[in-house]
Amino acid sequence: MNSQTSPSSDALSVGICGLGTVGTGTLLLLQDNADEIAKRLDRAIAVSHVATRTLDAERSALLEKCGVPNSSTDPFAVVNDPQVQIVVETMGGYEPAFDVVKQALANGKHVVTANKALIAERGNELFPLAQANNVSLAFESSVAGGIPIIKALREGLAANQIDWLAGIINGTGNFIMTEMAARQTPFEDVLRRAQELGYAEADPSFDVEGIDAAHKLTIMGAIAFGIPLQFDKTYTEGISCITPDDISYADELGYCIKHLGIARRTEKGIEMRVHPTLLSKSRLLANVNGVGNAILVHGNAVGATLYSGPGAGAEATASAVVADLIDIGRQLSAGVHEPVYPALGYREMRDDLPVLAIDEIEAEYYLRIPALDKVGVLAKISSILQQHDISIEAVIQKEAISEIIPIVILTHRAAEKQLNHAISAIEALDDVSGSINRIRVEPFHGEAD
Amino acid sequence: MNSQTSPSSDALSVGICGLGTVGTGTLLLLQDNADEIAKRLDRAIAVSHVATRTLDAERSALLEKCGVPNSSTDPFAVVNDPQVQIVVETMGGYEPAFDVVKQALANGKHVVTANKALIAERGNELFPLAQANNVSLAFESSVAGGIPIIKALREGLAANQIDWLAGIINGTGNFIMTEMAARQTPFEDVLRRAQELGYAEADPSFDVEGIDAAHKLTIMGAIAFGIPLQFDKTYTEGISCITPDDISYADELGYCIKHLGIARRTEKGIEMRVHPTLLSKSRLLANVNGVGNAILVHGNAVGATLYSGPGAGAEATASAVVADLIDIGRQLSAGVHEPVYPALGYREMRDDLPVLAIDEIEAEYYLRIPALDKVGVLAKISSILQQHDISIEAVIQKEAISEIIPIVILTHRAAEKQLNHAISAIEALDDVSGSINRIRVEPFHGEAD
Repeated sequence: MNSQTSPSSDALSVGICGLGTVGTGTLLLLQDNADEIAKRLDRAIAVSHVATRTLDAERSALLEKCGVPNSSTDPFAVVNDPQVQIVVETMGGYEPAFDVVKQALANGKHVVTANKALIAERGNELFPLAQANNVSLAFESSVAGGIPIIKALREGLAANQIDWLAGIINGTGNFIMTEMAARQTPFEDVLRRAQELGYAEADPSFDVEGIDAAHKLTIMGAIAFGIPLQFDKTYTEGISCITPDDISYADELGYCIKHLGIARRTEKGIEMRVHPTLLSKSRLLANVNGVGNAILVHGNAVGATLYSGPGAGAEATASAVVADLIDIGRQLSAGVHEPVYPALGYREMRDDLPVLAIDEIEAEYYLRIPALDKVGVLAKISSILQQHDISIEAVIQKEAISEIIPIVILTHRAAEKQLNHAISAIEALDDVSGSINRIRVEPFHGEAD
Repeated sequence: MNSQTSPSSDALSVGICGLGTVGTGTLLLLQDNADEIAKRLDRAIAVSHVATRTLDAERSALLEKCGVPNSSTDPFAVVNDPQVQIVVETMGGYEPAFDVVKQALANGKHVVTANKALIAERGNELFPLAQANNVSLAFESSVAGGIPIIKALREGLAANQIDWLAGIINGTGNFIMTEMAARQTPFEDVLRRAQELGYAEADPSFDVEGIDAAHKLTIMGAIAFGIPLQFDKTYTEGISCITPDDISYADELGYCIKHLGIARRTEKGIEMRVHPTLLSKSRLLANVNGVGNAILVHGNAVGATLYSGPGAGAEATASAVVADLIDIGRQLSAGVHEPVYPALGYREMRDDLPVLAIDEIEAEYYLRIPALDKVGVLAKISSILQQHDISIEAVIQKEAISEIIPIVILTHRAAEKQLNHAISAIEALDDVSGSINRIRVEPFHGEAD
């Protein structure tokens, strides 16, 4: 492990690329908690160089207040600064972040990044580069903000074969689902409110379509199972199709609806999927509301453990960035030859656990079927389900809304492929008008939580 | 850091002292998950020597099945075995565990222990000895079973000043409180049931009087605030005084009652206390039921994060023991000169944060007052509270039970010392018959959970 020392002092010398929310939060946290951090690390952390796209008056004042000696508008000035031992990448996005991180690693500098998209989509290239240069590429802050879930999966639960994990890992989406449930308000209205409150971006698709959650799930799944990062194989479904009616039918059946990321090891391979999910209301996970994040992890020895807290925000994310800095600093002080923890928890990633396509999974399902108010329609639907080996656990038949009677069905465990065939067949019935809303149910078989 | 290598192979050589529940669980887990562990650690863990008090036929068969080459009835045979690199201490109790661990450390061996009593009460002697010998003394399994809370506090949240933490950290006690609430059954009856189910010991005092929880709180508090272990200053109050009536009055007020360990940094010093606590039913922590454990930690940057899961049991505890083994193994592989993490997270423990006596705290309180059915008694009580600067948040006056009317009062924040005076004065009233049941309320001011 490279342990370049700062020429002028014993402090750990850090460079920050990107002064957005997380970069600024990190700079301020290093200043505000400097005493506590120095006590834990046994040396100070000094930010010696910061790069920011626009070095305006406000940012210049901040840098001066925090005693940062060098600043630039070029992130490469930071990664090529020989004084900098650790580079914090908080620019976000793919470019120039990828090249900046690559250059930092090639220069023998440790890197701490909060960039989940970069890790999930380019980590397979970056981690070997870090290993080749004998430096750490740390990313605790890239998943679930301030919750130390990477450390828990890679270290705390290292004695376990991980069976599955399931998480609420997008605060915006969880805020929207919570508000929809609490106020019986349609998706679009809640989204607008979330945008007004600053919880959702002007272009919310990254959050509400599940892409952000899929990035985080990709990272957690790789650590849990020792497989390469495979974002392109992670199934992703957003929450815009959920209606207040779905939430109230689910409630009637004893469930709430959460946007979950689920990674599971099965005999056939690994399931990696992000989608709205029915969850028994009695679960702790079902009671995680608002912008909170929570991850439930099932290990074959420990059983189910839950980690919850703020999944976003400047300070919470900075808490994880600085924890990574302290971790690297402690390793350098201990005189390591190489990083103590392989980035994803394994020296060699395994290639014998394929990620399954979504139609290869089995699950339980909630179906909301827009049936016409005619005699015998439920019998026809039941018969189709039976033909596809799908058995029914519960049915709710609601009162007619105009000519449509929504029929809500909860199925027992079934093959997704069979269910797709059954849905097509039901939608083709003359007695059914429009498309079926299908939501997967997660019973968390085995002990939990 | 001592990195004595096993002469015969590349495997990490481990000795186990004590083949009770946790020791046996550790041996079996190392066998069952051997492949997964070897993938994560990049080398195998081999148990080369086991000491057990009684080497009966069953244990001999187990050792043979697990391929353990050497066994003994003397734990010192293990700690003095030059082949053993890491000693797992799972004997429990103070003696001979203390001497065994001491000798192991003196011999330059790393130690992993599940012994919370030993760490809480003798850690101040043992940790410096580990440091002097440049070896790790790891104890993740001593607190909250399989939940990696030590790692979270010491590493994951290292960037924070910890403001407070509060935990359900005794599974037996939480099982009893959960059952009392669910069935409206008195303490004694539930305790008997817990003993029949094997959740409580024949002598349950360690659990129900809060001593076990106080050991765990002492350890977490030391890591959270960087103070020496001070078990003798941790205030401890059991749950045997809680009645089904208290649970139902609390419920009426929107609270449940949990046996919590609370550690908090205040301007005056550190609060360390284990006692029954009223907790708003809407909190995640209030919904942790049965033998589960959960710890809510508030850091000044991250806010509140929650860690929950199985707090006991052979496999869950073994999960943490083996995680410590993997951690030490990874450090040895990385060629450290000294352990990466100071045992309690700080190189120097601070002496400027005294632990406060219980009558120096401030809290909110629930009081159940056995008043006689006379006119004006509530007025007299209110007047006494007012004289002691204690204001009332809510009152429930129940129907008369024989000649006693229980009056239940919820106070605003008050000084415990004042409250004690007020309680004495109220108990001295002619209109009050018997002693007042006082339970502290925890509002978790600031954002949570």
